Amino acid sequence: MNKTLSIPTSEHKSFWHRYLPALNWLSTYNRSLFSNDLLAGTIVAIMLVPQGMAYALLAGLPPEVGLYASIVPLVIYGLMGSSRSLAVGPVAMVSLLVASGLAPLAAGDIATFIQLALTLALIVGLIQTLMGILRIGFIVNFLSHPVLSGFTSAAAIIIGFSQLKHLLGISLPSTESFFAQTIAIIERLPQTNGVTASLAISAIAILLFFKYGTVPLLKRMGVGESWILPISKIGPLVAVVFGTTIVWWFELNQYAGVQIVGSVPAGAPSLSMPTADWGTWQLLLPTALAISLVGYMESISVAKSLASKRREKVEPDQELLALGMANLGAAFSGGYPVTGGISRSVVNFTAGARTGMASLITAGFILLTVLFLTPIFFFLPRAILGAIIIVAVVGMIDFQTFIKTWRYNKGDGISLLVTFLAVLTVGVETGILYGAGIAMVFYIWRSSQPHMAIVGRLDNSEIYRNILRHDVQTYPQVLTLRIDESLYFANTRALEEMVLGLIAERPQVKHFVLIGTAINFIDASALETLELLLDELRDSGVEFHLAAIKGPVLDKLETAGFTRHFGEDHIHLTTHDAMRKIGCVD
Amino acid sequence: MNKTLSIPTSEHKSFWHRYLPALNWLSTYNRSLFSNDLLAGTIVAIMLVPQGMAYALLAGLPPEVGLYASIVPLVIYGLMGSSRSLAVGPVAMVSLLVASGLAPLAAGDIATFIQLALTLALIVGLIQTLMGILRIGFIVNFLSHPVLSGFTSAAAIIIGFSQLKHLLGISLPSTESFFAQTIAIIERLPQTNGVTASLAISAIAILLFFKYGTVPLLKRMGVGESWILPISKIGPLVAVVFGTTIVWWFELNQYAGVQIVGSVPAGAPSLSMPTADWGTWQLLLPTALAISLVGYMESISVAKSLASKRREKVEPDQELLALGMANLGAAFSGGYPVTGGISRSVVNFTAGARTGMASLITAGFILLTVLFLTPIFFFLPRAILGAIIIVAVVGMIDFQTFIKTWRYNKGDGISLLVTFLAVLTVGVETGILYGAGIAMVFYIWRSSQPHMAIVGRLDNSEIYRNILRHDVQTYPQVLTLRIDESLYFANTRALEEMVLGLIAERPQVKHFVLIGTAINFIDASALETLELLLDELRDSGVEFHLAAIKGPVLDKLETAGFTRHFGEDHIHLTTHDAMRKIGCVD
Repeated sequence: MNKTLSIPTSEHKSFWHRYLPALNWLSTYNRSLFSNDLLAGTIVAIMLVPQGMAYALLAGLPPEVGLYASIVPLVIYGLMGSSRSLAVGPVAMVSLLVASGLAPLAAGDIATFIQLALTLALIVGLIQTLMGILRIGFIVNFLSHPVLSGFTSAAAIIIGFSQLKHLLGISLPSTESFFAQTIAIIERLPQTNGVTASLAISAIAILLFFKYGTVPLLKRMGVGESWILPISKIGPLVAVVFGTTIVWWFELNQYAGVQIVGSVPAGAPSLSMPTADWGTWQLLLPTALAISLVGYMESISVAKSLASKRREKVEPDQELLALGMANLGAAFSGGYPVTGGISRSVVNFTAGARTGMASLITAGFILLTVLFLTPIFFFLPRAILGAIIIVAVVGMIDFQTFIKTWRYNKGDGISLLVTFLAVLTVGVETGILYGAGIAMVFYIWRSSQPHMAIVGRLDNSEIYRNILRHDVQTYPQVLTLRIDESLYFANTRALEEMVLGLIAERPQVKHFVLIGTAINFIDASALETLELLLDELRDSGVEFHLAAIKGPVLDKLETAGFTRHFGEDHIHLTTHDAMRKIGCVD
Repeated sequence: MNKTLSIPTSEHKSFWHRYLPALNWLSTYNRSLFSNDLLAGTIVAIMLVPQGMAYALLAGLPPEVGLYASIVPLVIYGLMGSSRSLAVGPVAMVSLLVASGLAPLAAGDIATFIQLALTLALIVGLIQTLMGILRIGFIVNFLSHPVLSGFTSAAAIIIGFSQLKHLLGISLPSTESFFAQTIAIIERLPQTNGVTASLAISAIAILLFFKYGTVPLLKRMGVGESWILPISKIGPLVAVVFGTTIVWWFELNQYAGVQIVGSVPAGAPSLSMPTADWGTWQLLLPTALAISLVGYMESISVAKSLASKRREKVEPDQELLALGMANLGAAFSGGYPVTGGISRSVVNFTAGARTGMASLITAGFILLTVLFLTPIFFFLPRAILGAIIIVAVVGMIDFQTFIKTWRYNKGDGISLLVTFLAVLTVGVETGILYGAGIAMVFYIWRSSQPHMAIVGRLDNSEIYRNILRHDVQTYPQVLTLRIDESLYFANTRALEEMVLGLIAERPQVKHFVLIGTAINFIDASALETLELLLDELRDSGVEFHLAAIKGPVLDKLETAGFTRHFGEDHIHLTTHDAMRKIGCVD
């Protein structure tokens, strides 16, 4: 009999149904599902066209790269993803990581930058695919919520400030440090292009109105539910049309110096070849790792949250595989790294996406856009795209979580703060590493001080409880200690010190009983400590007993020959058995 | 009432008695204690003279530096150490770290090397003192036993091979990599100096005879117990006298090319000044950190083991302070980094050292040696010192621990192997970092898959047990899950996946009960996951209950406002209470 409860997975499925989840829904696909998917896919496409271009610019890439990254990857994810409502494509966080990772390497050359972005997508794709195949998605567990929260807030601030130059129409020297950039912006405030700034402010007003104002307004006007969602999501499109029309009509690019997107090449993305050079790969590896993990985190968290709403299940390993393949698709179709975006996925879900078909439909619309609509974007002001980004990220700055975390647990609060400050000062990728490191150190530190309790007998019963919390009976010649954690290298020394300290304080003690009700595991360091402790206690004239050690733990100790060395007669089923054997009770 | 059991410490003592443990024994010091300490101190001095010179050569320093490091540091430790039998001074591991850390920086210049070694002792002293004051000695917990075992074995191999050139009398190009050095030795084997090699083999024979042969022999001869130990420990001294006499008598340094120690300056160590240059300090910091931790580990483990034999207690923080001050002493008296040595401490203890006075006596003898005996060492062959080192370290190569660890637990076995190989290939300090990293990753990986069990009711009792291990009653509309670990960022996702997976598999489930008997702590990430899970379960139409959450954990949840949000009526004292409330039992 299998004695271990394992997380339910899709391992029982056939190879194809497991790795190509689309087969699960394609066989029963029907007109009703399609009409749902069509609406959702269309709305997401409407959001994705301006967002894709904006995020590409944020990453430091030409706008069409953002659109290319929204075609092939979406098709691949639609077929391979285990989530039925995740909307994959360019997102803000990943774009920031691309920008901060590639800018120092490209040295201002846009062709190099594009090539590096392709290569980055390839490496991210390989890493995520490999993680999926090896089933090591668990390593995202190293990133705690406070670390992610600190990272997200700092990244949102960096992203927001990086767009200010577009919104104000000022040009900045390219500089890497966030603070240097902020100072440069403040110094150049007088150079603000009034027309550009007005356009930006109008765009922000439009975006905020659609984001917060439309839903209550349309409800009051009695507009049908099915219309409210699509209308509330076309804000970015309206801002784009508004800005483009005004600039084109008044020729503001010529007469007022408004920066525009300019010519965007028309046509489907062509086959692109990432660089296969080990030196380049090594340089890109840290950024690729950061994108792989951060992208997967963002994606899996929204996918899980949406799946649970319909009592569906996402498979973390399959998600890694699907995202990895989507990134490989991006690498060979002129794109850049992608992942599942939070806001677009929520819209996709709310608009009724029932299967990956919605993703395919979105990809189809984006393809039509790059084939036929690119001339429209010529007069699109960069300030409008900057406004779209700022409105998208401002909500990600999360001060409340900090307050809450700090109040709940100082260690977590410090992790959050260190990550936040490190991302702002040291850099985006290094910052998140610092955070993960600090969180691990805090955890090991805490678990290196496990909770231990001397226990005594409760009211002549067979129950033994903490002497500090209960009125229990103790016996001077016996020390009965319960440790409330598994024994492993970080806490084994605390146990040894506690035991030796207590024994040194109590010369009358002749027996020491270690109670294992909470010990699920004993690692090699702890095993060695137990052996050492056995010798040390023997030297002090104290007999060492073990009580209530769990079955699997005892089996392991037996294999290692410990129980024989320890003395089988000193290992007791329960604490009470131990006390009876010692002769304290009967 | 204090509800937490804390490790007994000396915090109740007065300032001076706490930080100067010598005051505790000085007040009651008497003739009997002194005669014990005198014998122990003398035997240790006899071992220390050749060992100190040998380890200094191993570190890449002139032999007198090893003697200087055996005077002031021993006085300081004797007064400040909380262990009464630890013998401080130059040791093999630390000397290897000094050699590997300084060789690339000194570029072959011996004056620079000595100055760097002083500075290293200063930084090690500051780090250890600071760790003692801040009470952060717990960070050595990051080094697990398997990692230390792998490190020690690899270091012993490196040390052993580094002495081969002295034993064979061949000269080698200075090279950093262990493998390159090994190959160079094999290539130059034909150049072996036969006389040097014969001396070395004779010395090894003498050392092995004294180490393993004398005790049984003297016992059989009926020699008194009190004489056996001193005699068995004079092997190195005999080897030194033997080698020196032969070389001096036959003038082998001139006629046979035997490498000798040469002139060792006479006189007490003078005040030395370490370098106070931030650039140098930064370069030395990694090595200093490694020495601080490895040195402290070696020291504290032997100190604790010896103290427990007399039911005494060592204070880890005071030990750090004492070792730190001893290293500061070394830095200002022409020495190099020191720590408590395992074999000399065991001898000190066995020979009867009762107080720190033994350490002071050893220091006195070493002082007399540098004042009057240095001319004797002129003809001392380096091969003899090499032989002393090899015999000392060969026992440190520990293959058995690897076999045992591998059998007991694969993860620990891999940590050991990775550390061992990394130390040999990548380098001594980097290797130990790799090992510590791997061990942490394995631990987090394991604890990211906590043991969970669905439980059911045992025989109409109030006891709920694992359904896979016991024949229990379950109720289809209720899922009752026990998690056997505290909830923190690394395992919180596993819990979420398990719960959502189980719920998705069981459409009939209307209630989910999480049992907290084993949860000692819930960190901010886990709190967020519980909140998320609450929403997700609500979306799935499942009510979330908590049962048997410990008092302190519940208090924390209350502070964070979680219990209110969760619903006080869904938090139950016991699993049975929860089942009663749900209406399954009465």
